[in-house]
Amino acid sequence: MKNDDLAIRSINTIRFLSAEAVQKAKSGHPGAPIALAPLSYLLWTRYLRYNPSNPAWPGRDRFILSCGHASMLLYSMLYLTGYDLSLDDIKMFRQWGSKTPGHPEANHTAGVEVTTGPLGQGIGNAVGMAIASRFLAQRFNRPGHEIVSNRIVALCSDGDIMEGVAYEAASLAGRQRLSNLIVFYDDNRITIEGPADLALSDDVAARFEACGWDILRVEDGNTDLDGMSKAMDAAFSERERPTLVIVRTTIAYGSPGKQNTSASHGAPLGEDEIAKTKENLGWPSTSSFLAPEDVLAHCREAIGRGERWEKEWLERFASYKTAFPDLALEWERRMRGDLPEGWADGIPTFEGGMATRSASGVVLNAIAAKVPELIGGSADLGSSNESIIKDSGAFLPEAAPGGRNIHFGVREHGMGAALNGMARFGGVIPYGATFFIFTDYMRPSIRLAALMNCRVIYIMTHDSIGVGEDGPTHQPIEHLASFRVMPNLHVDRPADANETSVAWRMALERENGPTMLVLTRQKIPVLPPEAVFKENGACRGGYIIEEAEGGAPDLLLLATGSEVSVALSARKLLAAEGVRARVVSMPCWERFEEQEASYKEHVLPPSVAARVSVEAAATFGWERYVGPRGAKVGIDRFGVSAPAERVFTELGITPENVRDRAREVLFSLKEGV
Amino acid sequence: MKNDDLAIRSINTIRFLSAEAVQKAKSGHPGAPIALAPLSYLLWTRYLRYNPSNPAWPGRDRFILSCGHASMLLYSMLYLTGYDLSLDDIKMFRQWGSKTPGHPEANHTAGVEVTTGPLGQGIGNAVGMAIASRFLAQRFNRPGHEIVSNRIVALCSDGDIMEGVAYEAASLAGRQRLSNLIVFYDDNRITIEGPADLALSDDVAARFEACGWDILRVEDGNTDLDGMSKAMDAAFSERERPTLVIVRTTIAYGSPGKQNTSASHGAPLGEDEIAKTKENLGWPSTSSFLAPEDVLAHCREAIGRGERWEKEWLERFASYKTAFPDLALEWERRMRGDLPEGWADGIPTFEGGMATRSASGVVLNAIAAKVPELIGGSADLGSSNESIIKDSGAFLPEAAPGGRNIHFGVREHGMGAALNGMARFGGVIPYGATFFIFTDYMRPSIRLAALMNCRVIYIMTHDSIGVGEDGPTHQPIEHLASFRVMPNLHVDRPADANETSVAWRMALERENGPTMLVLTRQKIPVLPPEAVFKENGACRGGYIIEEAEGGAPDLLLLATGSEVSVALSARKLLAAEGVRARVVSMPCWERFEEQEASYKEHVLPPSVAARVSVEAAATFGWERYVGPRGAKVGIDRFGVSAPAERVFTELGITPENVRDRAREVLFSLKEGV
Repeated sequence: MKNDDLAIRSINTIRFLSAEAVQKAKSGHPGAPIALAPLSYLLWTRYLRYNPSNPAWPGRDRFILSCGHASMLLYSMLYLTGYDLSLDDIKMFRQWGSKTPGHPEANHTAGVEVTTGPLGQGIGNAVGMAIASRFLAQRFNRPGHEIVSNRIVALCSDGDIMEGVAYEAASLAGRQRLSNLIVFYDDNRITIEGPADLALSDDVAARFEACGWDILRVEDGNTDLDGMSKAMDAAFSERERPTLVIVRTTIAYGSPGKQNTSASHGAPLGEDEIAKTKENLGWPSTSSFLAPEDVLAHCREAIGRGERWEKEWLERFASYKTAFPDLALEWERRMRGDLPEGWADGIPTFEGGMATRSASGVVLNAIAAKVPELIGGSADLGSSNESIIKDSGAFLPEAAPGGRNIHFGVREHGMGAALNGMARFGGVIPYGATFFIFTDYMRPSIRLAALMNCRVIYIMTHDSIGVGEDGPTHQPIEHLASFRVMPNLHVDRPADANETSVAWRMALERENGPTMLVLTRQKIPVLPPEAVFKENGACRGGYIIEEAEGGAPDLLLLATGSEVSVALSARKLLAAEGVRARVVSMPCWERFEEQEASYKEHVLPPSVAARVSVEAAATFGWERYVGPRGAKVGIDRFGVSAPAERVFTELGITPENVRDRAREVLFSLKEGV
Repeated sequence: MKNDDLAIRSINTIRFLSAEAVQKAKSGHPGAPIALAPLSYLLWTRYLRYNPSNPAWPGRDRFILSCGHASMLLYSMLYLTGYDLSLDDIKMFRQWGSKTPGHPEANHTAGVEVTTGPLGQGIGNAVGMAIASRFLAQRFNRPGHEIVSNRIVALCSDGDIMEGVAYEAASLAGRQRLSNLIVFYDDNRITIEGPADLALSDDVAARFEACGWDILRVEDGNTDLDGMSKAMDAAFSERERPTLVIVRTTIAYGSPGKQNTSASHGAPLGEDEIAKTKENLGWPSTSSFLAPEDVLAHCREAIGRGERWEKEWLERFASYKTAFPDLALEWERRMRGDLPEGWADGIPTFEGGMATRSASGVVLNAIAAKVPELIGGSADLGSSNESIIKDSGAFLPEAAPGGRNIHFGVREHGMGAALNGMARFGGVIPYGATFFIFTDYMRPSIRLAALMNCRVIYIMTHDSIGVGEDGPTHQPIEHLASFRVMPNLHVDRPADANETSVAWRMALERENGPTMLVLTRQKIPVLPPEAVFKENGACRGGYIIEEAEGGAPDLLLLATGSEVSVALSARKLLAAEGVRARVVSMPCWERFEEQEASYKEHVLPPSVAARVSVEAAATFGWERYVGPRGAKVGIDRFGVSAPAERVFTELGITPENVRDRAREVLFSLKEGV
C-alpha cells in the first residue's frame, strides 16, 4: 500500500479489532470487515457527514451496513470515530447485554441506523431513506435555506445483491432517480458455498445500469486508496441517478491461509492465523485489541468535524426558523415523532355499511389532510387497496414536488424494506398497501419493522375468502394467525367502518411498532357506533359489541372483521331459541392482551365456558379464547374460487352454522360430555 | 392483420371466449387474454408439443402461465385444443365447483401444469422444471435414445417481471444456462395503477442479458404473426442459454374504449364494449361464446398431432427399454412417484447426541444413496444446513453430468419456486435448505407447494435461539406457529437424531404435500431409541417419550425438538419432588392431529389437566394441547445475541423453570384457583 502511514495504521486497526473481537467471541464474521476496512476508513474519515456526539442529528448522512454480518466493521468504526461505544464494548462482541450484538441493532447501539442481517433488506432500507429524504427536502427546503440534504450510503455484499428484495429496491430507486443514494458493493466473489460464480454469473454492473443506476468501479479495494477516493469523489458529487460503486476486494485480505476463501466468512480466523495476518500486514503481534493513540486521535477528528457540521446546520436551521417559523415548528414536531394537534378531527363517524377497505380510504384521506408526514402507496394495487391520498399527486421525480402517493410497483418486498427505511429516517409516517395474501411476499421486512419498533402502517385489503372468484391463491387463510404470533406487530381486523377508524387512530398513535390493518374487499354492515365507541371498547382490542339479552350470557360469540356481523346474526337466531349470547368483537388481540385482567374477565367471563369463535380464517390460536369446551368456526383448508357469498356458505361461515355449533357446545356442556 | 383467415378467426375465438367468460362471471381479467391470443395461438398450434388426450405424457413441453390472472387465455387454449374442458366449463368460469377457477390450479384442471396467480412464481417454477428436465436427461438419455427433451415455456407479465422472485429465478437460470427455457414477456406497458412506467423504468432486455439470457423481440404482438413466428422459430431452435422473448402487445387489443388502459386489466369489459370490440375486429356480434366449427377443427388438430408425438415417444421408449431395461424401469418408477424398494434401509439408528441438522445430513446421504431422484441444495448455506449429498457433485452446466447438489445462491425465494417446478415436473424429489429464519423469504412458494400438493422437502436448520450469537435477526420465534397454521404443510421438529430419521422417512413417503424439517444448530442428546421407535410413536407425530414413574401421571410435559431434553430433565427434577410427570414429544402436530381420537387421548389423557408445554418459540397455539389450566414455557418476544446457553437460560428455557411452572400449575389446580 503506497498510502500514508496513518491511513494504513487506521485500516489495520479496523481489521484487527474486528478479527480479534470475532476471535474472542469465538463466533462471527471476520472476512468482510478485514476486506472492507480501507473502504470504511475512507468513508468515515473523508466522506460521510455525521456527528458522533449526536447520533440523532437530522442533518447526518445515513450509513447502512446491509451485509449486517460484517457488524464488527461498523462497531470498529463507531468506536474509532468516537460514538458511545468503548473498547470494552468491542471486547464484549456477541455477549449477553452488550452493545455489540452479532448483527447491528437499531435502538440498541448508538450510530446504528437500521437493524440488518437478513440479506438484501439494507438496500431496500436505503431506498426508503432516500425517498424520505427527498420528500422532506421537497417539503422543507426553501431557496437559500437547505436544511435537508442527506446522502444515503449503503454497503452490501454478494448475498445482498442476489436477494430479490435488493433487485426490487434497486429497480424502484432507478425509476425514482434517487440521486442521493450510493451503494457500495463488496465484490469479493466469495460466498459461503465457495466462489460466488457457483451460483452467480450476473453482470452486476449491467444489471444495475439496466435499472437506471450509474456505475463506478474500484478495481483494487484492498490497497488502492487513491482509486477508491476518486470513485468516492464521483459518487458523493452532485448526481442525477443512484450510484453503485463496485469495489473489488479480497475477503480476509492479508490472511495468508484464509484470504479469498469461504472459510474466512463466518468463523473466527484462529489465533494462529490472526498472528500470521498481523505479521503479513506489519501489525504488532504482541498486543491485542490495539487502537494506537495516533490512530484514535486521527479517527476521532470526526467528533470535532461532526460538531462543527451540526453547529453549522443548527445555525442554518435557526435562520430557517426565522424565515419560515411554521415550517420550522412542523419540522421539529415531525422529527420528534409527535402528531399535530387535532390530527384526528377530520375522521368521520360512519353510519352506513361499506367495505372496511373503503372506510380505510376515507379515514386515510381524513388523516392525510391533517398529517402531512403520512406518505405511502401500494404495490400496484392503489385503487383496490383504497390507499391513495386523493388530494395529492404521485411521488415521482418528474412530478410536482410534494406528491405523497408512491407507486411501489409490483414489489411488495421492496416496498416493505423501503417503508422501514422511511420510518427509520424520521419525519415521515409511512404506509404500504397490497392484498393481505401478499404479505407473504414482504414478511421479512414486516418482521424487521416489528424488531426495529418502526411506526409503519400496512393497509392489507381483500382479507379472506371474501375475495371470492380469485380463488385460493388470493384468499388468505393462515395469514391472521401467522401475524398474530409475530412479536410487536399489531394485527387489527376491524369489523366495520367505525372500527376501521379506531384501527387507524391506534396505528398512528403507536410509536413503537408497526400495525397491520386487515380489511375486507366486500361491503359489510355498520355496527351500532355507540357500541363501538362505548368506553373505548374498540381501542381495547376486544369488547362487548352486543350483550346477551334478558340475563347473564349462556354463551360467548367471539369474532373479528366481517364475521362480527355473522356472529350478530347468529346471536339473533340463538335468541329465538332462548339462548342468551353475548357477541364480542376482537379486532386486535395484541391490544386486548395488554388490558388489565379484570377487563379481560369482564369481556370474557371465566364462568362462561360455552364459547364459539367465528373467523373466516384458520382457527389456529383461537383455543386461547374459546377454551377446550368451545368451538371454532373457521377455515382450516385452502379456499375456493367462486363468488364470495357462495364460498362463505360452502365453507360454513354462516349464522346458521354458528348457531348449530353453539348448540352443540351448549349441549355437550350441559350433558357434561 | 394480413394473415390467413383461419388464424385470425382462431385468435378472435380465443379473445372473445376469454372476454365473454369474464363478462359472464362478472369478474376476471380480460385484457391480457385478448392481447396474448395471437401469441398463444401460434404457440399452441405450431410450437408446443403436447397431447391433449394425455396431459401427463412425460414427453410434453411444459407451458406455465406465470401471469395466472390471464387464466381464461389458458382455458380457451385447453378447450380449443381438445383437453378435457368443455365450452360449458368455460361458461362456468370462476363458479363453485367448476374446472375453470379464477386462477389456474394444478391437480384440478387437466393441462394446467402449475397453480399460478401470485406473480413471479411461474418464472421460478419454469426454472425448476428446466432444472428437472436437464437432470433427468443427464440420467436417462443415452446416445441414440433421447427420451427426455422437453422445452419449458412460460408466459409472464410486467408484474411477474417486477417481483424479486422472478429476478432470483432468472439469475439462477442464467448461471445454469438452462437452454430449454423460453420465457415470453408480455410487454404491454400497463399495470394496475396506470402506465407501467409509473413504477418501472428497467431496460428489461438489458437486465435479462446481464443475467445471461438471450433476448428476442417481437415489436408487434397484436397483428404480426410472421414476426412472432420468426421469433418463436429462433426461441425453439437449439440454444445455449435461456431465452426471453419480449413481445410488445396492447392490453385488450381491439377494444375501442379500453385497449391500452388499466381498466381492461382486472374487470369485465362490459357488454357494450365487447360488442364494440367484436365490431372492431370483425367478429360476429350476434352469438356469444362462439367457437366456429372450422376453428375448432383447426385447433383440435392438436389431438392427432399430440397422439402421434406420444406414439412416437412411446416407440422410442420401447426401444430404450430393450436397450436399457433397468433405466427404463427406474424411469417408470420415478414417473409414478414410487420410492425404490428398500429405499430407507441405509438409514442408521443413532446412539449418540448430535445436532439434528447433523443427523439430517447423515440421513439425507443414506437416502440419497438409494433414491437417485433426490436432488436439491441450499440457498448458499449447504455446509451449515448439512444438506450436501457427499457422493455427488454440483449440478452445474459445466460440471460432470448427474450432479445432485444445486447451488441456489442467496435466493431463498427463487429456490422455493424452483423446487415447486421440479416437483411438478415429476421424476425428482426436490429438497431445499436454508436457515429456518429465512423461510420468511420463501413463504409464498412454500404456500404454493402446500396448495399444489408438491412433495418438496425443506431442510430448515438453526431453528431457535439455539442460534445464539447471531441474535434476533437470525433466531426464529414465530416461525413454528406461522407454519403450523398453513394448510397441508407438515412441520416436523425432531427431538433427536432418531426422530430426525423418522421425519425424513415420513417426508419421503408423503406424496401429497411438502414437509418442513426444523432442525437444531446445536448438539442435543439422543433419546432412548426404543422409546422413539416404539409403536411408531414418532411417526404418529406425538407420543410418550418417557412415562411417569410410579403411577398415573400427575402432569404432562409437552415439548418438541431440543426442548424435549429440557422436559426430560424437568421430569427428573419433578420426580425428586414426588411429582409424576409424563413427557410427550410432539415433533409433528399435523401427523398427531391425523391420529385416531383414542390414540390422542392415550397420549394426552383428558383427565390430566396439569400440563406444561416447552418450546423455544412463541407459545401461540399451544393452548390447544395444554388447555386453560396449563402453562406454556416459550418465548413471546424477539431473541437476543449471546452464546446459546446463556440465551436459553435468560429466556427461561431451562429444566428449572419448567419445574417451577409445573409446580405453579399443580398448585393452582390443587387449590382450585
